[in-house]
Amino acid sequence: MFIGFSEAEVFLRNCKDAVILIHQNPDGDCIGAGFGLKDILTELGVRSRVVCHDEIPSRYDFITSVGLGEEFEPQTVIAVDIADNKLMGRYNEVYGERVQLCIDHHISNKDYAEKTLLRGNAAAACEVIYDLAKYMGMKITEHCATCLYTGIATDSGCFKYDCTTPRSHEIAAEMMRCYNINFARINRYMFDVKSAGRMKLESKITEIMETYLGGKLNIITVTKQIAEDMGIDMDELEGFAPITIQLEESEVGIFIRERDNDFKCSFRSANDVNVSQICQTLGGGGHAKAAGCSMTGELSDIKKQLIEAVERAIG
Amino acid sequence: MFIGFSEAEVFLRNCKDAVILIHQNPDGDCIGAGFGLKDILTELGVRSRVVCHDEIPSRYDFITSVGLGEEFEPQTVIAVDIADNKLMGRYNEVYGERVQLCIDHHISNKDYAEKTLLRGNAAAACEVIYDLAKYMGMKITEHCATCLYTGIATDSGCFKYDCTTPRSHEIAAEMMRCYNINFARINRYMFDVKSAGRMKLESKITEIMETYLGGKLNIITVTKQIAEDMGIDMDELEGFAPITIQLEESEVGIFIRERDNDFKCSFRSANDVNVSQICQTLGGGGHAKAAGCSMTGELSDIKKQLIEAVERAIG
Repeated sequence: MFIGFSEAEVFLRNCKDAVILIHQNPDGDCIGAGFGLKDILTELGVRSRVVCHDEIPSRYDFITSVGLGEEFEPQTVIAVDIADNKLMGRYNEVYGERVQLCIDHHISNKDYAEKTLLRGNAAAACEVIYDLAKYMGMKITEHCATCLYTGIATDSGCFKYDCTTPRSHEIAAEMMRCYNINFARINRYMFDVKSAGRMKLESKITEIMETYLGGKLNIITVTKQIAEDMGIDMDELEGFAPITIQLEESEVGIFIRERDNDFKCSFRSANDVNVSQICQTLGGGGHAKAAGCSMTGELSDIKKQLIEAVERAIG
Repeated sequence: MFIGFSEAEVFLRNCKDAVILIHQNPDGDCIGAGFGLKDILTELGVRSRVVCHDEIPSRYDFITSVGLGEEFEPQTVIAVDIADNKLMGRYNEVYGERVQLCIDHHISNKDYAEKTLLRGNAAAACEVIYDLAKYMGMKITEHCATCLYTGIATDSGCFKYDCTTPRSHEIAAEMMRCYNINFARINRYMFDVKSAGRMKLESKITEIMETYLGGKLNIITVTKQIAEDMGIDMDELEGFAPITIQLEESEVGIFIRERDNDFKCSFRSANDVNVSQICQTLGGGGHAKAAGCSMTGELSDIKKQLIEAVERAIG
């Protein structure tokens, strides 16, 4: 059931001992939203803990250094930035059917929770949480502001992409004026700093990028073998997908990463192609200009399916 | 003489037949500021023309397609985003001594004009011009908003860098809410789209980047020969300088470009080193985290001087 801010406020003010679930392969938005909400619950005197299928990458230490939260038997289950309970990974079995409140910004949200605060036009889950906190008249700490800024900045490509809203900018202005966040340092670590391995991999882009459909589709694949050869962790690959649409003539880009049991495929749209719709035909979802799906099988077969799906959409 | 908004308003409302000078090697901010001011003067019924030492790169066609303005004998000389009249190139001789109004955001402004509207804390000259237009109660057209957004976005690294102000974000929000700008498309062309040659050059970065001072300084040099080998125009190299500080341990990065008679050296600071001060010792200037200078002589001698200057600053 979809709810508004007032009902979400009543829920948060009356909950106890909450786990906050964030999605697998965590990114800046779900991490910022999880830890930002944890700070807000602390202000409300509610004990909470952030829970994730995967380990949170070390470049988010400035957010996670406060700790995930102590162990306790949860009485409340909250999900943030999770459009589909399948994205909880191994926690889907434990909590997937008993999420009481979901706070999200994915228009594709499956409405799996008892109550869902969905703002499908927000750039980030962190944007929804900030507006909720302001609606509730909450005090926002510097750490909380840092978390929420990080989510808005990362999901909007630092205010670069279509999904950026006027509200994203207004919130960023408030964060800078009122909460003393070190936004330039956050952005440096989120967008600019690269390991030597990542730089080396990027220098191979022109070799490993494949072009299809007369230049309209580019695919970059990073197998475990390539990552090993370059000496980089798979979690250093966040932010790699946009490289697939850097050439002027490209319409759609796909970044394929090999995982233990499948291939994660991240789609980007340069202009008007709706990649969320393409990904839905492949069992995934997301936003119009940034979406994804998971594929299993032989890499060559997977690529064939992806190319065909894009070709159908481009027409 | 430094003036405020009210005096600048009186000046603009009473001027006639104005040339608007922008600096050589024009970037998004001076181009946006020049053409944005031209739109405002048009609203005021003042004829104007944008003048630049160099040709404006074609990726700014969405701004310049309105034309530079008709020829006429100027009665008014205005400079935007020009901290030092030397940066006018060949127009310094013609107009350098007779600039009546300068609108700028460089704290290093030489106060060479009769009247200077300087906002040293603004992220961009376009930010100053937008606030001036609002102060004057001017109507802002969609084209004018597009120009001014472009300048704010490019000079702030799309709201990423330290120089971004809360006001930059507030203006961006207003641009999106009120003036219907296609910000995502602007940002795609300003930050993401790359020619095949540029991509090829970036793939050589790990080969051509030199590291000094125990990893704290990185230098990338692009000679005319390298550019020719890669098949790219020198004007495709805008936005290249930040690559010099992408490695985590880097403090200062220098991007050296060969020009006809000298080498343009663009400095970037990753953290606390003030590169404007370093550049001032080399006859240049700029901002604390992004500055530059021109050097003549043998490339190897130039590099030696640059390294020594950085070493002195880092201590």
